[in-house]
Parts: sequence; C-alpha cells; structure tokens
Amino acid sequence: MNFHVLTLFPEMIENAMSYSVIGRAVKEGIIKINAVNIRDFSKNKQRHVDDYPYGGGAGMVMQPQPVYDAYKSLNVKEGTRVLYMTPQGKPFNQEIVSELAVEEELVILCGHYEGIDERVIEEIVTDEISMGDFVLTGGEIPAMAVIDSVSRLKKGVLGKEESFMEESFSNGLLEYPQYTRPPVFMGRSVPDILLSGHHKNIDTWRHRQSLIRTMEKRPDILKSIQLNKDDKEFIEAYKSCTDTNFK
Amino acid sequence: MNFHVLTLFPEMIENAMSYSVIGRAVKEGIIKINAVNIRDFSKNKQRHVDDYPYGGGAGMVMQPQPVYDAYKSLNVKEGTRVLYMTPQGKPFNQEIVSELAVEEELVILCGHYEGIDERVIEEIVTDEISMGDFVLTGGEIPAMAVIDSVSRLKKGVLGKEESFMEESFSNGLLEYPQYTRPPVFMGRSVPDILLSGHHKNIDTWRHRQSLIRTMEKRPDILKSIQLNKDDKEFIEAYKSCTDTNFK
Repeated sequence: MNFHVLTLFPEMIENAMSYSVIGRAVKEGIIKINAVNIRDFSKNKQRHVDDYPYGGGAGMVMQPQPVYDAYKSLNVKEGTRVLYMTPQGKPFNQEIVSELAVEEELVILCGHYEGIDERVIEEIVTDEISMGDFVLTGGEIPAMAVIDSVSRLKKGVLGKEESFMEESFSNGLLEYPQYTRPPVFMGRSVPDILLSGHHKNIDTWRHRQSLIRTMEKRPDILKSIQLNKDDKEFIEAYKSCTDTNFK
Repeated sequence: MNFHVLTLFPEMIENAMSYSVIGRAVKEGIIKINAVNIRDFSKNKQRHVDDYPYGGGAGMVMQPQPVYDAYKSLNVKEGTRVLYMTPQGKPFNQEIVSELAVEEELVILCGHYEGIDERVIEEIVTDEISMGDFVLTGGEIPAMAVIDSVSRLKKGVLGKEESFMEESFSNGLLEYPQYTRPPVFMGRSVPDILLSGHHKNIDTWRHRQSLIRTMEKRPDILKSIQLNKDDKEFIEAYKSCTDTNFK
C-alpha cells in the first residue's frame, strides 16, 4: 500500500515510520511512504508557501498553488482518497481505519500555520479527518496515526500472533489486564486464576474483566455493544455487589 | 517544562519533536524532552523487556521491572503525573491539554506489544489517556500529540500572533474558511466580503461560517456551546433557508 504524504516536514514522517512493526513493513516493501515536501512546489525565490489571510487576522495561510502542484506531482489515479488532517474533520476511529485499509493508495495532506486556503481543499480533498478535539502544530502526528493504524490491517504487516490480537480487540470491549513474570512484583501477586491452568475459567475471568473495565472507564462504549444474557446478568450482579468478589 | 518519555523508541520521539514550533522550543530550552529507553533497564543479557502472558494467549506483555526501574531513574518529584497512553484511557481533548499545561514536569509511558503488566501501571500511573478508538503499534505517536499540544500552551513556545490564534479557537466553534493569494485560483474566487475592507462585516461573516461548519460537521459540539440570541436566530434562519444566501 502506498501512502503519499504532502507535508512541510517529510523527514519527520519518514523517521517516525522507520521503527518497530511499521518500519519493518516499509523495509519489506509491504507499505511505501512517499513524503513530499510542499515547499518544493513554491514558485517564489524564498520558497514561501504561506501568505497573509484575505480579510485580515492573525497568522499565515498556506497558499493553494504549492499544495495543488505537490498533489498533481503524485500522479495518483482518479478516485484516490485524499485525507486532510484537521480538527474540523470526522473523528478518527477503527471503523475509518478498516475502511481506509481496503485502499491501495492514499494521499494525506498535512496543514500548518493558520490553515490551508479553502479552495485547494475543495479541489482535492475527499475526507477531512480529526484526531480529536485538541490543537496540534500540524497534521504530521495525525498522519502518522493514520499510517500506523491502517498499515496494521494490511496483510503481512503483523505477524500471525499479532493479527490474532487485533481481532480480539474487535469485540469492542476494552482489554482485560495483562500479567507476566515475575509472579510477585512489589508485593503484588498475579491473580491466582491466571496460574490455575483452567482455560475456560481464565477466558471467563478475562471477559468479565473487560466488561468491568469498559463499564467503569467507557460506559459510552458499553452502551453501543450487543451484550448476551450472561454478560447482562454479570453486570447487574457486579453493580449490586458492594464487596469485591467479582474482582 | 520537562517531558520524560518512557519508551522502546526514544529516537522516534526525539526526532519528531525537533521540527517546527516544538523543535524551536526545545532548542531554546523552553521545553525539554527526556526520552528514556526502557530496554536500558532490562536485567537479562538479551535485553528483553517482554515475556509471555500469565494465563496464556497471543502476544507478549511488557514486564513490570524494566518499566518501574526506568521510571525510578527519572527521580521525579512525588506527585508528578504519569500518563499511560492506552485505548482504555480517558479520551484526550483540549481540556486535558490545559490541565496538563500547568505542570512543570510530566512522565509519559508508552506501551508496546500486547500491553504492560498491570501491576506496574497500578504502581506508577496517575492518568490513562487515549488518543481515540483505534489501534496503534505503540504509545509513541499519542505521546507526541500530548507533548505538542501541551507545549503550545506554555509561555514562549508560540509567538505573539500564534498565541492569539490559539485563543480564538477557544470559542469552541470550528474554524471559518481561510483564503490567501491569489485572488482567483482554478476559477475559484476569494469571497467578495473578504476583499471589502469592512472589518465588522468580515467578523460577522467569519463567525457565521464557523457556526455553519460546526452545525454541519460537528453538531455534537454545537449542542455543548452557549449561543447568544443573534447566533440562534442566524442558525434558525440558515436552517429554514433553502437557497444559498447565507453561504
């Protein structure tokens, strides 16, 4: 899969995508990161890509021409999705990740300064995507999040074991707590059940831990999930129980 | 302000924080990034920091000891907030950014593999923070987002003009569209009003554009904002208006 990133800081993207699972996928050619410097398409001597906003106001606005020419230089097929990372976009989530992962090629446009001239956004952008309701210096960090999350769903990027984990997340609940060696750390023991060897009991315990966590930390998620009868009964029992038998 | 990042990929953090506004703040010593490699605190010859999960299952879990020792090596003051970047955390937003920006020192813990042993999380973490409902390879990209957004609120990181922009975001609405030179781009003109020189009218137009955008793209945000009488009337008129006079 090809990711084209239109940015003022191509090295920032290239470096960040050279580590761990994603770095390996790049090296193996499973994914390709093509970070293009918008500044290379400036037509003035100072290589400026921004100018004052019409109508006044603080800050500088990125001009449409260098952004457009950078985009044209990619020569992507018609219909290729062009994401613009902006707080005004659709909040990013795993559903969008899955949707993007079927593409063979994506363009990601990173803004800087006060924003990008609206006309080039109208001209080339197909999707406005937001990382959340907070202000960042530019679109580069959100672009990394898109590349990372989407790549993970591409065949060959994750190993067999890792892929399995990905699927297990898809039940929609938060993860149960994990423990590894040593059995006692700073006076805290691993829960006995995990040492019991009873796989069915362990599965039940983990599932219930996921339910408890989701209920306590993200009740909004729990509401949107179809629970079966056992789960519902457990949650009722847990809620009405003041001791910690269930923990 | 000091950001201590506990990570398996310290260079990834250091590189990403060396560009643009944040890179300048680092160079000027306004913020300090101390990325510590958890692997340096492994006690085995292979420098492993992960092991199989108790109770079975796919994937590897980060062991508590190297994480804890890495944390202890920071020698931070008691009460220093320790953020763990995890999909199970509180969704990150500008309110949390403001809250974190009053701190002089922050610790950010980045997980990898299937997660981190629960006991060390219980031992050291004060805040679990999520970037959103999607799966990433590690906590590094979310950590960058925290550092970037929080740093922007620290005195001296943004220039005077930029700071002003930041404030203007705080009315809670999405940004109005921006335009810069040339006046005509690919047949699209800058809206006449922005060339009119009537500052009051421009302000009103921009404010209404913000209202329209917020209404169309993020009705959830609009609901949570206190609108004045003029705004309410405008929105009603806009909704009932089928032509494009208001656009």
